[in-house]
Amino acid sequence: MHLCSPPSVSTRSMASKTPVGFVGLGNMGSPMAKNLLRNGYPVIATDVFPESCKELQDIGAQVVDSPAEVAERADRILTMLPSIYFTFTGSLCDTRASADVRRLKTSIKEPGNALCFVLFRKVKKGTLLIDSSTIDPAVSREMAAAAEKMGAVFMDAPVSGGVGAASLAKLTFMVGGVEEEYNAAQELLTCMGANVVYCGQVGNGQAAKICNNMLLAIGMIGTAETMNLGIRLGLDPKLLAQILNMSSGRCWSSDVYNPVPGVMEGVPSANSYQGGFGTTLMAKDLGLAQNTATNTKTPIPLGSLAHQIFRVMCSRGYANKDFSSVFQFLREEEGQ
Amino acid sequence: MHLCSPPSVSTRSMASKTPVGFVGLGNMGSPMAKNLLRNGYPVIATDVFPESCKELQDIGAQVVDSPAEVAERADRILTMLPSIYFTFTGSLCDTRASADVRRLKTSIKEPGNALCFVLFRKVKKGTLLIDSSTIDPAVSREMAAAAEKMGAVFMDAPVSGGVGAASLAKLTFMVGGVEEEYNAAQELLTCMGANVVYCGQVGNGQAAKICNNMLLAIGMIGTAETMNLGIRLGLDPKLLAQILNMSSGRCWSSDVYNPVPGVMEGVPSANSYQGGFGTTLMAKDLGLAQNTATNTKTPIPLGSLAHQIFRVMCSRGYANKDFSSVFQFLREEEGQ
Amino acid sequence: MHLCSPPSVSTRSMASKTPVGFVGLGNMGSPMAKNLLRNGYPVIATDVFPESCKELQDIGAQVVDSPAEVAERADRILTMLPSIYFTFTGSLCDTRASADVRRLKTSIKEPGNALCFVLFRKVKKGTLLIDSSTIDPAVSREMAAAAEKMGAVFMDAPVSGGVGAASLAKLTFMVGGVEEEYNAAQELLTCMGANVVYCGQVGNGQAAKICNNMLLAIGMIGTAETMNLGIRLGLDPKLLAQILNMSSGRCWSSDVYNPVPGVMEGVPSANSYQGGFGTTLMAKDLGLAQNTATNTKTPIPLGSLAHQIFRVMCSRGYANKDFSSVFQFLREEEGQ
Amino acid sequence: MHLCSPPSVSTRSMASKTPVGFVGLGNMGSPMAKNLLRNGYPVIATDVFPESCKELQDIGAQVVDSPAEVAERADRILTMLPSIYFTFTGSLCDTRASADVRRLKTSIKEPGNALCFVLFRKVKKGTLLIDSSTIDPAVSREMAAAAEKMGAVFMDAPVSGGVGAASLAKLTFMVGGVEEEYNAAQELLTCMGANVVYCGQVGNGQAAKICNNMLLAIGMIGTAETMNLGIRLGLDPKLLAQILNMSSGRCWSSDVYNPVPGVMEGVPSANSYQGGFGTTLMAKDLGLAQNTATNTKTPIPLGSLAHQIFRVMCSRGYANKDFSSVFQFLREEEGQ
Repeated sequence: MHLCSPPSVSTRSMASKTPVGFVGLGNMGSPMAKNLLRNGYPVIATDVFPESCKELQDIGAQVVDSPAEVAERADRILTMLPSIYFTFTGSLCDTRASADVRRLKTSIKEPGNALCFVLFRKVKKGTLLIDSSTIDPAVSREMAAAAEKMGAVFMDAPVSGGVGAASLAKLTFMVGGVEEEYNAAQELLTCMGANVVYCGQVGNGQAAKICNNMLLAIGMIGTAETMNLGIRLGLDPKLLAQILNMSSGRCWSSDVYNPVPGVMEGVPSANSYQGGFGTTLMAKDLGLAQNTATNTKTPIPLGSLAHQIFRVMCSRGYANKDFSSVFQFLREEEGQ
Repeated sequence: MHLCSPPSVSTRSMASKTPVGFVGLGNMGSPMAKNLLRNGYPVIATDVFPESCKELQDIGAQVVDSPAEVAERADRILTMLPSIYFTFTGSLCDTRASADVRRLKTSIKEPGNALCFVLFRKVKKGTLLIDSSTIDPAVSREMAAAAEKMGAVFMDAPVSGGVGAASLAKLTFMVGGVEEEYNAAQELLTCMGANVVYCGQVGNGQAAKICNNMLLAIGMIGTAETMNLGIRLGLDPKLLAQILNMSSGRCWSSDVYNPVPGVMEGVPSANSYQGGFGTTLMAKDLGLAQNTATNTKTPIPLGSLAHQIFRVMCSRGYANKDFSSVFQFLREEEGQ
Repeated sequence: MHLCSPPSVSTRSMASKTPVGFVGLGNMGSPMAKNLLRNGYPVIATDVFPESCKELQDIGAQVVDSPAEVAERADRILTMLPSIYFTFTGSLCDTRASADVRRLKTSIKEPGNALCFVLFRKVKKGTLLIDSSTIDPAVSREMAAAAEKMGAVFMDAPVSGGVGAASLAKLTFMVGGVEEEYNAAQELLTCMGANVVYCGQVGNGQAAKICNNMLLAIGMIGTAETMNLGIRLGLDPKLLAQILNMSSGRCWSSDVYNPVPGVMEGVPSANSYQGGFGTTLMAKDLGLAQNTATNTKTPIPLGSLAHQIFRVMCSRGYANKDFSSVFQFLREEEGQ
Repeated sequence: MHLCSPPSVSTRSMASKTPVGFVGLGNMGSPMAKNLLRNGYPVIATDVFPESCKELQDIGAQVVDSPAEVAERADRILTMLPSIYFTFTGSLCDTRASADVRRLKTSIKEPGNALCFVLFRKVKKGTLLIDSSTIDPAVSREMAAAAEKMGAVFMDAPVSGGVGAASLAKLTFMVGGVEEEYNAAQELLTCMGANVVYCGQVGNGQAAKICNNMLLAIGMIGTAETMNLGIRLGLDPKLLAQILNMSSGRCWSSDVYNPVPGVMEGVPSANSYQGGFGTTLMAKDLGLAQNTATNTKTPIPLGSLAHQIFRVMCSRGYANKDFSSVFQFLREEEGQ
């Protein structure tokens, strides 16, 4: 689904089937890069982990040693990194291995980790940079300004959908950036996703992603509280879910991804909260929502509390469980 | 839609078209009673406000002076009261005119207000009492126990849907009570509603209603925060609503009742938050959710905060606006 | 310290050294009753647990079988019960063994548990009833009204201070009730406490107690969050406590009862959060604060969230630890 | 009071009475600079507002046009700016006139606003930079690293106490930075404050300040809620304050700065919440607390909610009132 299809066409989008650069071959990046290959695009890829590179090389990608080399060889480059951080010196880095800010400060001195630093230093004029990482919209805007100085174009295109959707090319991309370049981005993104939505100026893709995930988090905790309260009041959970789903309490977390074991099949709650979207990832996205809200002086009382709840869960053993495990977290333990 | 249709049939449900009692002829009770009349049931009604009685009398109801008289003349009685409160002396009263507990203490000494007190003293053996008020499920259970001592049957059947749905007989009833009597209740309730859902033992109707409204409240505030944040980040509100509604942030408040003016037509946000479901009523329902959660030691962090937010709104001039006005409440004022 | 010493003197306060009734010999009630004995008052006591009675009997109290007998033999009666609950039938009971409302409904049918039921049925004219339980002020007011009908006087006098303070007669009593009877109450309470504060009409003692404990709970969680944040930012906890305590962040939880192990000696945090004031008791008091706030339509956003946090802690293994263990609850676990 | 007096003495601290630079002559900076003059230090000052410069010039300071000139002429420089922000290009700027990030992006292109940019470019080797602005500790650490590259030393020294304390040289300074330089900083800071507390490594002064203000905010809202609830329950506010202040609910907001009009004299609540510490400033500090907590993955549920409450207040007309006006905000309006 393409909510907005701006008519203008840039010349770069004609350059189909010329090589596409890909930086970041993790759980999401790897299947995304594979889908580019499947659609006939030569891919020039890199990652800090050699085994990730090896896997992609085996199916036809050209692997290079650094983002700088990617920048030298491709004029369309996708990045898919866990997070991106600006330092005082204006550099940009992948923080995959960085547990906290202090360690980050160390890691950027090690050239191996500073994925994007050289990318930006080496990027060619006219290059299209598409970043699918989930980061602060303000950082996306800083990156776009930096790219502009190099004569390049930067667009943000974060995704909705997990590893499964990435493999099946069923992701949703929320794209921000100059409208004239949208078609060029869309050409590549449609190889990897089912929906590509143009959200306006650069940073707006991130804004849409963050907004959606904040409301998702609120809805999930709300559903968990509500189901738990209903059960405590004597209601059958399946019946309660039915009632909510035909009433005004209905939400995605109640009708598609119910957090109560036994209510639905094929969801993490039916499988001990394995798989799905980890609590630690949700906490990260809520941290971004919190930061953008603080910076824009926007009150988000429930979003803020949702952030805190997932943060506490991360410290109580739920970090790697699906975020719907908040139902389990809130539920009274046996014997209490 | 009848989720559960228990097969057993009581003899009372054979007593069709014998008079039905109706206590409480307010904004909701009045159209409900009218729909009983339209379906051919003689109605014996009462209310503390004479004008409400007059209107119903004009279209064929028999109006009597007190709940006691209703109890004497009907063996199926519906009650639809703003709230119900138990006092130390075991009496039961309508608190319509009572702004707080202290005033309540006074009001119950005035016989005119003690609607249900006499009802319970005079109820005949075998009477079916159906209460559509929204009250604490624990109170419903107390009332059922009290009714049982009198040889009567009490069921709770709170509604979802507003004045419009009441007029059009499109309400949803959530019914709690003994299964053998459900058909008798259903016979009457289908005259006033489109959906009648059997929720299990007495009090479960209230439990379902309270749970739904708590999740609704959370979803509404969450939607208001999210839409506001998105707008502050530069997103077009209509586009953001579209994105949420095709993604995991989707909920009833985002796709049916969006709180942002200009996103949808025919909702309170399109009409200065007039009509709809008042903030003060939502605050009342969240108070019930809070009480049941406290009594059952169930944690409801977001539900609790939602309660507090609507409570603050009531004191800041939003009491009579639709509860979706939380968007306006959270939004930064001009000039700040 | 006696903040208010109303001059009027009732005749009952002349009745010194006549027997004093005592209902409820738990962790708090038992040392309180002992202090009455130490001050030369004959004590007529009862409790549902025979072993509690035995202990008091051994040091000189007269033990009777029921509150009814206490009511027949004493005209000054103290009650110290875990909680008190009114039922539909107007009875009053001790809910010590009752985990939830449903079990309560059963337990009141067992005469052994219905401590106060008979007390109120048998109370003599002119009796002074002093209740030191922590309950809803509205219930205290109902009880005072009920006592008045029997020709008796009811005052609420909840305590601040734990088992240690009870043993050392160092409790603080917050007293509500008619001013003319305050001296009579004060005579007994000064045997058990260091401070007796007259708070106004009946229920005001409870109101003051609930208010204090709500602010205490907020201050404790706030201190725990703040100390944890400071430590994560690299501050030495002892130094941070010093800075807070000389600045505007100062509160009882930071300067008397610091929740961080190693900052202070002689507090629960120095002893694995053993002893002190249990999380489950704090959650109970916050439930009362929540109920009174809901009933009076008063917004308490932080109080409400504090309630939810202690409620979650109760379900995650902290029920019997001191409430300052919220520091431990919020702190990130090793290995995360 | 000097909690820690490290014995080592740097040579710079011998340089007494040589000129001291001062950047930022606002409500706080101006009286601070005056106190340096009063203690015999020549002051070389600058600010974006000419009138602020004029006032200081009249009492003996040498005014220059830019931070760069300050950097060229002084080897001890104090900065006192509303906020400091790093941009992608590594520059540093005063955001006084910047309402949001977008405007910031514009403003840094105007050389007039980029106060510190040139300061850092021109700073001499061996210079001691002391920053008394309240900013993110992580930014302080970045600045210290940047200063180190220039051969200079950076310390953070935020203040507690308002304009009055600044005029009377009664501020409290919380100082972070290398221990060997602490004496040199202390020499200057004691001219402007009554307490200078060494908090450890650079950034720790900010950390202590942020922690204190977060707990202050929590205590103030908690006190406002508690006093409001007590009043609604029928307690006299003065009596309630007395009870809290002799009990475990005691905190700075209850015993020094009570938010309820009529309880204390000489505080903002006694003067229509004029003066004091503005809600908008408290919201800013809580935004910093929130950011540091998010970045260090520290849960701060009450701190986070306090942030949101002050944020909502800013949008509802309380921005410039003292932060204790939260009592007024929460209180029910007349006529509701």
